[in-house]
Amino acid sequence: MRQLSLAHRSGLFISLEGIDGCGKSTQAMLLRDHLEERGRSVVLTKEPGDWSHGGEIRRILLGGDLRHEHTELFLFMADRCEHLLQVVIPALDRGDIVICDRYTDSTLAYQCFGRGLDPTFVEGLFNWSDFPVPDVTFWIDVPLSCSLGRISSRGSLDRMEEDSDFLDRVRSGFQSLRESYEDRIIRIDGEGEENVVFSRLMESLEGLIPWQL
Amino acid sequence: MRQLSLAHRSGLFISLEGIDGCGKSTQAMLLRDHLEERGRSVVLTKEPGDWSHGGEIRRILLGGDLRHEHTELFLFMADRCEHLLQVVIPALDRGDIVICDRYTDSTLAYQCFGRGLDPTFVEGLFNWSDFPVPDVTFWIDVPLSCSLGRISSRGSLDRMEEDSDFLDRVRSGFQSLRESYEDRIIRIDGEGEENVVFSRLMESLEGLIPWQL
Repeated sequence: MRQLSLAHRSGLFISLEGIDGCGKSTQAMLLRDHLEERGRSVVLTKEPGDWSHGGEIRRILLGGDLRHEHTELFLFMADRCEHLLQVVIPALDRGDIVICDRYTDSTLAYQCFGRGLDPTFVEGLFNWSDFPVPDVTFWIDVPLSCSLGRISSRGSLDRMEEDSDFLDRVRSGFQSLRESYEDRIIRIDGEGEENVVFSRLMESLEGLIPWQL
Repeated sequence: MRQLSLAHRSGLFISLEGIDGCGKSTQAMLLRDHLEERGRSVVLTKEPGDWSHGGEIRRILLGGDLRHEHTELFLFMADRCEHLLQVVIPALDRGDIVICDRYTDSTLAYQCFGRGLDPTFVEGLFNWSDFPVPDVTFWIDVPLSCSLGRISSRGSLDRMEEDSDFLDRVRSGFQSLRESYEDRIIRIDGEGEENVVFSRLMESLEGLIPWQL
């Protein structure tokens, strides 16, 4: 199995992706706890929002009456620029393991595959802004019925958790990204108990990294 | 003298530009008052900030500890997308005269000429986001010494009103934009009493429009 090359920095950059209700935030917490129990220094962070002014951007994204189809994208871009320089890159430079709950693939899946923006143009923005590529991305994949069931049990859908057609396009987007970046993106079957899903994720991760977790 | 073609919509879109302390906000208010006295319906608005969540973006821009060189640009882009769709375009569709205190030329002058971003790439973003071009842009030009004197008399410099080298690059940027878009951008000598400057501006505007103000 391919092993990650970590020569470019001392830390490890893991992103978790998937549609709303897929369980990635739970998996991110389980992964952090597991790694910390083994003495690793871990930063668990999320997009949008985990930096000094990120909460303000998150509030605009979730509650705003946004009308232009590009506003979300530009807010996510601004949020990511600062999140990277204030949180992610300093942690990687310290040698920490960074677990990022949503990152660039969410922008492509939601804003491009979901809402119709041009993915080539948006990836061009990522490159222009010099966004680092994760060492590995776990795509926690669940059927739409599973996602919608978990979302509805939490309460109402918010702006980013819209209708099932939209989430279906987003899920297809993650599938397409998985095919385009098969060296980086690993699909994890997200159905079943959280500990079962987590053991699938750990089995994949342990095969990828050049040291014992 | 060239007259504006207003066939594409019923309103008139005027932007005012210039370095900090040039007097454009004063000129914008004088212009609004003058037009309203003559029975015109006018919307005076400014960037960044004049829409439902614009105040939050303005606060991040002015007070934020921003580290990535693209964050400001993406926040201005998000702000402009919503400002256009929530404020500017509805007013133009009603047939109003919109006076916009800073618009795309400020982004090019400050973020590109001032801070070094690629103007071709940034203009590509404007086109991608379908930003309307003003019918006329008045660049209120003052020497740097005049700008710095007015800024210091107001109190401290804020994040966007930095050192004189920076403002000098921004002023050169406006000059360069004036040369590139001479059909749209009109330089107004901003030195002297505000009523003297305003009479220069009105003389230019009256020559441009196909009806009596």
